[in-house]
Amino acid sequence: MPNCSELDDDDMNADRLREECGVFGIFGHPEAAAVTALGLHALQHRGQEAAGIVTYDGARFNSERRMGMVGDAFSKASTIQRLPGDRAIGHVRYSTTGETILRNVQPLFAELDSGGFAVAHNGNLTNALTIRRDLIRSGAIYQSTSDTEVILHLVARSRKHQIVERFIEALRQIEGAYAFVALSNKKLIGARDPLGIRPLVLGQLDGHYILASETCALDIIGATFVRDVANGEIVVISEDGVESIRPFPHQSERPCIFEYIYFARPDSMVHGRSVYNIRKRMGAQLAHENPIEADVVVPVPDSGVPAAIGYSQASGIPFELGIIRNHYVGRTFIQPTQSIRELGVRMKHSANRAVVEGKRIVLLDDSIVRGTTSVKIVQMMRDAGAREVHFRISSPPITHPDYYGIDTPVREKLLAATHSLAEMRELIGADTLAFLSVDGIYKAMGVGARNPLRPQFTDHCFTGDYPTALTDLKGADIKAQLSLLAETG
Amino acid sequence: MPNCSELDDDDMNADRLREECGVFGIFGHPEAAAVTALGLHALQHRGQEAAGIVTYDGARFNSERRMGMVGDAFSKASTIQRLPGDRAIGHVRYSTTGETILRNVQPLFAELDSGGFAVAHNGNLTNALTIRRDLIRSGAIYQSTSDTEVILHLVARSRKHQIVERFIEALRQIEGAYAFVALSNKKLIGARDPLGIRPLVLGQLDGHYILASETCALDIIGATFVRDVANGEIVVISEDGVESIRPFPHQSERPCIFEYIYFARPDSMVHGRSVYNIRKRMGAQLAHENPIEADVVVPVPDSGVPAAIGYSQASGIPFELGIIRNHYVGRTFIQPTQSIRELGVRMKHSANRAVVEGKRIVLLDDSIVRGTTSVKIVQMMRDAGAREVHFRISSPPITHPDYYGIDTPVREKLLAATHSLAEMRELIGADTLAFLSVDGIYKAMGVGARNPLRPQFTDHCFTGDYPTALTDLKGADIKAQLSLLAETG
Amino acid sequence: MPNCSELDDDDMNADRLREECGVFGIFGHPEAAAVTALGLHALQHRGQEAAGIVTYDGARFNSERRMGMVGDAFSKASTIQRLPGDRAIGHVRYSTTGETILRNVQPLFAELDSGGFAVAHNGNLTNALTIRRDLIRSGAIYQSTSDTEVILHLVARSRKHQIVERFIEALRQIEGAYAFVALSNKKLIGARDPLGIRPLVLGQLDGHYILASETCALDIIGATFVRDVANGEIVVISEDGVESIRPFPHQSERPCIFEYIYFARPDSMVHGRSVYNIRKRMGAQLAHENPIEADVVVPVPDSGVPAAIGYSQASGIPFELGIIRNHYVGRTFIQPTQSIRELGVRMKHSANRAVVEGKRIVLLDDSIVRGTTSVKIVQMMRDAGAREVHFRISSPPITHPDYYGIDTPVREKLLAATHSLAEMRELIGADTLAFLSVDGIYKAMGVGARNPLRPQFTDHCFTGDYPTALTDLKGADIKAQLSLLAETG
Amino acid sequence: MPNCSELDDDDMNADRLREECGVFGIFGHPEAAAVTALGLHALQHRGQEAAGIVTYDGARFNSERRMGMVGDAFSKASTIQRLPGDRAIGHVRYSTTGETILRNVQPLFAELDSGGFAVAHNGNLTNALTIRRDLIRSGAIYQSTSDTEVILHLVARSRKHQIVERFIEALRQIEGAYAFVALSNKKLIGARDPLGIRPLVLGQLDGHYILASETCALDIIGATFVRDVANGEIVVISEDGVESIRPFPHQSERPCIFEYIYFARPDSMVHGRSVYNIRKRMGAQLAHENPIEADVVVPVPDSGVPAAIGYSQASGIPFELGIIRNHYVGRTFIQPTQSIRELGVRMKHSANRAVVEGKRIVLLDDSIVRGTTSVKIVQMMRDAGAREVHFRISSPPITHPDYYGIDTPVREKLLAATHSLAEMRELIGADTLAFLSVDGIYKAMGVGARNPLRPQFTDHCFTGDYPTALTDLKGADIKAQLSLLAETG
Repeated sequence: MPNCSELDDDDMNADRLREECGVFGIFGHPEAAAVTALGLHALQHRGQEAAGIVTYDGARFNSERRMGMVGDAFSKASTIQRLPGDRAIGHVRYSTTGETILRNVQPLFAELDSGGFAVAHNGNLTNALTIRRDLIRSGAIYQSTSDTEVILHLVARSRKHQIVERFIEALRQIEGAYAFVALSNKKLIGARDPLGIRPLVLGQLDGHYILASETCALDIIGATFVRDVANGEIVVISEDGVESIRPFPHQSERPCIFEYIYFARPDSMVHGRSVYNIRKRMGAQLAHENPIEADVVVPVPDSGVPAAIGYSQASGIPFELGIIRNHYVGRTFIQPTQSIRELGVRMKHSANRAVVEGKRIVLLDDSIVRGTTSVKIVQMMRDAGAREVHFRISSPPITHPDYYGIDTPVREKLLAATHSLAEMRELIGADTLAFLSVDGIYKAMGVGARNPLRPQFTDHCFTGDYPTALTDLKGADIKAQLSLLAETG
Repeated sequence: MPNCSELDDDDMNADRLREECGVFGIFGHPEAAAVTALGLHALQHRGQEAAGIVTYDGARFNSERRMGMVGDAFSKASTIQRLPGDRAIGHVRYSTTGETILRNVQPLFAELDSGGFAVAHNGNLTNALTIRRDLIRSGAIYQSTSDTEVILHLVARSRKHQIVERFIEALRQIEGAYAFVALSNKKLIGARDPLGIRPLVLGQLDGHYILASETCALDIIGATFVRDVANGEIVVISEDGVESIRPFPHQSERPCIFEYIYFARPDSMVHGRSVYNIRKRMGAQLAHENPIEADVVVPVPDSGVPAAIGYSQASGIPFELGIIRNHYVGRTFIQPTQSIRELGVRMKHSANRAVVEGKRIVLLDDSIVRGTTSVKIVQMMRDAGAREVHFRISSPPITHPDYYGIDTPVREKLLAATHSLAEMRELIGADTLAFLSVDGIYKAMGVGARNPLRPQFTDHCFTGDYPTALTDLKGADIKAQLSLLAETG
Repeated sequence: MPNCSELDDDDMNADRLREECGVFGIFGHPEAAAVTALGLHALQHRGQEAAGIVTYDGARFNSERRMGMVGDAFSKASTIQRLPGDRAIGHVRYSTTGETILRNVQPLFAELDSGGFAVAHNGNLTNALTIRRDLIRSGAIYQSTSDTEVILHLVARSRKHQIVERFIEALRQIEGAYAFVALSNKKLIGARDPLGIRPLVLGQLDGHYILASETCALDIIGATFVRDVANGEIVVISEDGVESIRPFPHQSERPCIFEYIYFARPDSMVHGRSVYNIRKRMGAQLAHENPIEADVVVPVPDSGVPAAIGYSQASGIPFELGIIRNHYVGRTFIQPTQSIRELGVRMKHSANRAVVEGKRIVLLDDSIVRGTTSVKIVQMMRDAGAREVHFRISSPPITHPDYYGIDTPVREKLLAATHSLAEMRELIGADTLAFLSVDGIYKAMGVGARNPLRPQFTDHCFTGDYPTALTDLKGADIKAQLSLLAETG
Repeated sequence: MPNCSELDDDDMNADRLREECGVFGIFGHPEAAAVTALGLHALQHRGQEAAGIVTYDGARFNSERRMGMVGDAFSKASTIQRLPGDRAIGHVRYSTTGETILRNVQPLFAELDSGGFAVAHNGNLTNALTIRRDLIRSGAIYQSTSDTEVILHLVARSRKHQIVERFIEALRQIEGAYAFVALSNKKLIGARDPLGIRPLVLGQLDGHYILASETCALDIIGATFVRDVANGEIVVISEDGVESIRPFPHQSERPCIFEYIYFARPDSMVHGRSVYNIRKRMGAQLAHENPIEADVVVPVPDSGVPAAIGYSQASGIPFELGIIRNHYVGRTFIQPTQSIRELGVRMKHSANRAVVEGKRIVLLDDSIVRGTTSVKIVQMMRDAGAREVHFRISSPPITHPDYYGIDTPVREKLLAATHSLAEMRELIGADTLAFLSVDGIYKAMGVGARNPLRPQFTDHCFTGDYPTALTDLKGADIKAQLSLLAETG
């Protein structure tokens, strides 16, 4: 229910890309639900709208799905006690497909002929609507509007006998990006799409295997990192240990570069790289590509901080906190009257005038989406007395929307899709504006230049080079054929 | 979550039969949801655990399902505003099959190939588990553990094109008792099972047709009663008016006699009979069958009141309120310590000593299930100084469980199934004990004696004469084949 | 926050007199708070807006005060556990003076020089505003807008040393009606005003003394009735037992007659009289005073039932439930649109047409206040087909407001204060209308006729004969001198 | 209800000093309550346990007081609408004296002879218990256990006529630290204690005067800073403008140095100094006093960041985020079992191994209180592979508790009060440990060295040199004379 009159005008998050989800699973731990709640808490940055946990206790699947933060939804002992069992999967959600209503909160569950089956998904399926329509025609009933539910139906309708075989049969029918964790009454299963667009790691705690979107979910509970799940790999964890299955033809991996730019936590290791160090290198590379004379480097908090440190170290210009973040902010505040709105209230950030006044500042952010907050933050610096504002972005211009689990606006709303660099600078009101180049970001990633024939990363947001078919997008207005059910739940 | 240490020892309701559900539907009224909420409020006695309403607004189905009372769940304007549309169906629920969790709260909804379809059900299907198992084997995914959901799947899988045809095809496959109201994007549909076990009436408000479980749901909104929906009849309400379909071979109706004894509201007319008058006649018939010399007739409130008035008028013994009900009672109270429990706290009823002391009383109740509360209420009368307690029950002994939507305990827990009349009297502690005879209840119903070949009413609880096949019951432990999902919702 | 558009048009309670409060106290019981919660639950009919309990655990006073019903506010074990101690007082409230906000919920508490002191009050002080103004002038700070708080300040400012002496000194300064229970760190104190307007009884449970507004609060916990506290008596309960103090000059008692007519529970004994039997006698006396030929006697539920039974037994006209009450009603429902309102929705009561149609009915209610609901209920009977409606009221016409703890409207709003009998009948739409006479009600009370020099009961609502000075009422707009604090709490 | 088994073992905040409160007031603004809510939001770091606002609307005082954050308690339009009026005061609270229960949440209000009076307080009165005891002896009744309430009683009992005179008379009787904002029906009043221990600034928004604890509360609404309220100054704001009163003999100001070290927001200006710059200078001075060879400077987030930047710039050692803070943390989490606790879960912070591993780190924090979290954070660095950990504290050792509004543990629990530097280093597990010197902090403040005869700042926590009498502390167990009331409210 976004409310237009909320006081979030200066909300730096309002113009961010949104991550879609985080997943976690553990097998064989006596306190599986509690450990999963902790793991999800460490993944909270990947989705704050809802969270869910499903456990299996040897007789029965138990599910708790809630709107809101993990720390609110799963902090009570009574909630955890309703989740007995030594195996669990969990999910944090920021909705990209399907409304965020309780029916859509994952893990989703189905009672199959062979027993219960629960699944949680990070990513987005690009042919889900097409499959959904076909299944409804043959009598399937959907319990949600989530794209993830198609996998349940495909598994349910498979004629195979083993749950892993049924799951693989289903995976062969779907397109797009996914990191799945799934739970049957015998097995914990993880799966990454053939290109490895979304991340998934394997860890271990006291001998019990764990699957998680990021290594920070291992760190919070003191688990050890075993390895990344490979692109196109299915890992099956049971009482017999871990089995690895590779049902797809081999391809080079092509992970999403935005995990490094914005989504992953700075203390996570993604594909063997420190996210924090990569961000610093993006900042340093930006300083090399776009040197400028200035007095201070000011990050847009918090995501711009590592790149700003890198920029400062590479350029020798001092790093300073020129913008202070208010840590006590929820999403919304008073619905104010017009007169309050005209005050230009700054709920979440404020300028640190003592640092900014009279200075030439390099203002560093990680990306520009619509540009609306960039306008405000540059203005905030000028209001605080900045002499010059040199706006630097530690990634290339975003010119294309995502369809793999990142919530981007339609193309027309992407600032860089419709404006030249000069127009953007003018609109944002900066003295100078510069982005990191596409090759610069590949350099920062340590892979030399971009290989245009077989790019090392999923980077369509900067290049328009989508790595998979976009089946639903080509279908003629599929959405219009669903008479959706609105439910507050 | 029944809590054994709740202070409901003297709860007269704890040992009652539970009604399962009430349904309501309206077509074409500009305030369909508000009218439905009022209708459900009048049907609240049929189910207090949950309530739900689905509307269709010409583009979209809207659903609100909540735990708790209608007056709590649907009293806010904001809730009603989330239910736009001029056609609606609603449901109040006391769970008989399926846990009372939000997923099980009706109306249930499915997105079909032909559009959305919502259904609400009063009754119980006696082959639901059998059908469910078969459908899961062929890949169906269930969203609830409710028996009602099978009808959705049967409709979804029908190869017919028209929604009414698909619904009828589904009805042909189910057994048991049902009064359905269903809503498609074009039609409001009502259906009663071939024997008409559960009630359903047709009404009209300002030219808009209404379906409801009882006439009291018409009275609350000033609607007029049109007629009972017949046994085995499907009524289809659309912009073209009402259409009546009779897809089943003709049978005599055989409505559930318990609607008269206990479930229906006294001001409702059921099959043309005043429930209040029938209860008075049961009391009068009881006085004729079992005369006794006494000073006062005391009803067990509130359900025993009409029969007690009838008994008093027939016998000439004065009617007095010897038991006072506390109107301010929720379901539970303090979890007390042993010392509190030993006080014998009476939360919901108390003896009116001024009426009882030194008197010979005829204590009148409508039925005995387990007998646990009968023991307490007779003791309460004795504690208040009653000289003699003559316990009279205005229906026959309950010897068999129900499978058509009434929540009865298993046979072993039914007092009359395992005790002789003398044993029951002894156990309950009454000076005398008498039940209305089976023929007496038929007499009170105005149909002369019971026709043993073709009984006029569904009366298996007294006779063991079940009117339909009990398919699931014959299946070998079907339940064990489901690994149910526990969810708080 | 009464909302004009609530659907309570046909709410029979909307036009009722409101009782103000009930009090309870117990000394020495190991589970004092739990027992008090049960006692308050039995007194719930005396006040449903708020409830509170204060205990003393030997070191510390503990207080829980809540809006809403006892069963909601004090049903959790955790709430009771926050109230340790073997002595407690409690209060249920319907506000007459002071807004119902948490600060005003009783028991009120003060930290005195001699230790803590808590007090709960049923009644109303007629010089509270005068005293309050004087005390504020000398520097007192009020924590509430309740009239009860003056007693705390008077006790706090007393120069006496013993708490009982200080309390008595305070009582000497107040006027009006009161039944107090108070708790110090050593004693439980009860007090009734010199005329005994409001009731208070002494009971015993396992040797522990109890004070309560009505005997029904003893019955719920199986306590025994010891005696009524006398008018003008102070009872002091301590580890040494009960002490009785009579600080006021002797007067005859003059209890409020409305406890018998409407407020007390029918199973309570008030001053040695059964409330139920008194009500039946009022109905019988009414039949003698105003005989009429009719087919049925119909009570307005629930308060009119005992008088209707009495009327029926005296007149020989059959008693029937012609109006059915919906037991599942909260206070409010949907804020409807105009079109819903025009339906004339009946949320709480409905006509039992089978009883009413074609009949000449005697409609029996206990009192008429504004008359608004009488109009509706007579109309409801006519809509249900009543041939004649003879409206009978089992008490005299209310012509004067109360100032002793009953919430009556101002005089201009009292129907009988501004209309003749003929005008009332006309307005209400009954065929005939008759009230019980003043002498008739004294006869029903068993005291012969009213003694005009020294009336046996407080009956100013019928006679204008107020038993005490009305000091505040004579003061020139005292309220205007307070700049009240609004707080939701 | 602090729960010992909460998962906050690694909670960096658990071992912090707690600020007590923040205050805000505005006069003449049409949206006074909304503006006050925003101002309090900017002061949220000064108190997160409760918040309150009182407004005056020309006729009536309106109050809303709530547990929890401003953004939760005052974010709804409906709450603000219950606070009409063009003048308001507000308060955020972290309890130092008096339990945090609703009765203690400020602003406190009293109905005086002259009209209503509300007051909000940042600081602590060191003779409040002594005054309270005296006032209770003469009949005063307290509504809270807050030290602030004495000011209300002193004002209420003053014989002066004007509210400002009464307030000043009250101020003359109290000792300790205070910044008050008060509201009468005519005036908004601000007051700072004679030494100016707690801060208070005067601002202006569209010509309407504002009082606030810090300048950041002006910045959020775009108000301009006018000046600091002087030590010992009373400012009276009315429709006639601002009046300044100096009722106390002149003294040099002596503001609390902890506002600079920890409490004030880095973007605030306190007494003309940028808090951010002072913190950087403390870090730089620390680098000068205690140079060390190392690879990286790592701040303990977030309060150690400015000092770490200062240290890095002064020493030339690179600044890096070696500890990552989880932004999605509430106060508590699952009550874990022993096995979960043994995981050493890190809910709020985690090591950034890529920065720390194999490095010699300067770990920079602003202070050490009990030392418990220092032990954990040093261990976290070692677990992440730090080669050397040099712990540096940007303020002197805390050896004495505070009595002026900062929540410090008793002296025995202060690590530096009972351990030598060597013992502390040993216990904490650092390779080296160094604090900023007392003279060093005065140098960083820009006032040269400390003047021992007349210290420029309130610094007793480091020196034991308390600036005022500690009357209550000298009284023989004053607390024992209060029989406190426990209430959840």
